[in-house]
Amino acid sequence: MKSYRNELTFQLPERRGFVNITPQVEQSLADSGIQEGILLVNAMHITASIFINDDESGLHRDFERWLEKLAPEKPYSQYDHNGYEDNADAHLKRTVMGREVVVAVTQGRLDFGPWEQIFYGEFDGRRPKRVLIKIIGE
Amino acid sequence: MKSYRNELTFQLPERRGFVNITPQVEQSLADSGIQEGILLVNAMHITASIFINDDESGLHRDFERWLEKLAPEKPYSQYDHNGYEDNADAHLKRTVMGREVVVAVTQGRLDFGPWEQIFYGEFDGRRPKRVLIKIIGE
Amino acid sequence: MKSYRNELTFQLPERRGFVNITPQVEQSLADSGIQEGILLVNAMHITASIFINDDESGLHRDFERWLEKLAPEKPYSQYDHNGYEDNADAHLKRTVMGREVVVAVTQGRLDFGPWEQIFYGEFDGRRPKRVLIKIIGE
Repeated sequence: MKSYRNELTFQLPERRGFVNITPQVEQSLADSGIQEGILLVNAMHITASIFINDDESGLHRDFERWLEKLAPEKPYSQYDHNGYEDNADAHLKRTVMGREVVVAVTQGRLDFGPWEQIFYGEFDGRRPKRVLIKIIGE
Repeated sequence: MKSYRNELTFQLPERRGFVNITPQVEQSLADSGIQEGILLVNAMHITASIFINDDESGLHRDFERWLEKLAPEKPYSQYDHNGYEDNADAHLKRTVMGREVVVAVTQGRLDFGPWEQIFYGEFDGRRPKRVLIKIIGE
Repeated sequence: MKSYRNELTFQLPERRGFVNITPQVEQSLADSGIQEGILLVNAMHITASIFINDDESGLHRDFERWLEKLAPEKPYSQYDHNGYEDNADAHLKRTVMGREVVVAVTQGRLDFGPWEQIFYGEFDGRRPKRVLIKIIGE
């Protein structure tokens, strides 16, 4: 069994945003040399998300509005977590979107359907945050 | 390390529905010959879900109503994604329910609690859509 | 390839609660002797959750309030599942929080960011319920 590990770092200029990280994940997979196995991508911070969906800007605006409806940023005082912090909503939004994805690796490729793309979802940005890629297989 | 891959295809007659796919996943596991490892099942389409819960029709109706409350299908115009499409709600519903499950394989069986069953959740049906099963282990 | 399996059992005194199980998961990883691989932790019951977030009591109160808003426990009659049962809300809450986490194992440790901790989330307590830990690697 082979294993491979890599970290990516993202610093988004706004509080929230989505970044398509599929190219970086594909590069890591190529670097690993693994042909058959399982690939894990997870946010290492608890106010960010990794998820798989469509690379379509209208949908991303829908996600932003929908998450604000489910877990509004303001007023900050509605959350007990917001004593020294103001990011309780970011913890909730990341919970909806998910911490991680697990992807099959087949013949050295991400084994994806036609529209699957991997996104980094930031909900408390403006500082460097890390993403972990771990691959095991042969 | 051994690895195994299979695809299932579903075409549901309605826009939304849940299908218990545990028997097909068990058959794939038997076909793989893998005794100890990890099994991944994921929707290959971004308006469908794989999740684990109870095979109880009342609960499934509750899921349907609850998802319609969290991410209503209509009016279509509430979503930016709905220019050429009308399925933005399906992307959101699938996000709540999840893209994938990872299941332990122990002594050649799905290592499940008493009520765990694997479901395909369709949120934009009436066309063929694929599910990926990947198993690694020994 | 090595594989390791362990079960934890929790009986919470209230209907709902969160327990930091990171120490028990770390102990299982140490017992496994696995240095590089993937670790799966999942609830074996469909009204409980395993998730990764911050060990901060204010945030946990926020989660409790937020989940009650998204999927209220009462009135019980609002859910079709609640014929013989009263726990439909627990199935929905666990869906939001997730069934499982997959964690990278690197150099014999959980490969975590600075604040990541693993929690058992109970939504229908007062009886013994099990959590599965499966690790594969080398």
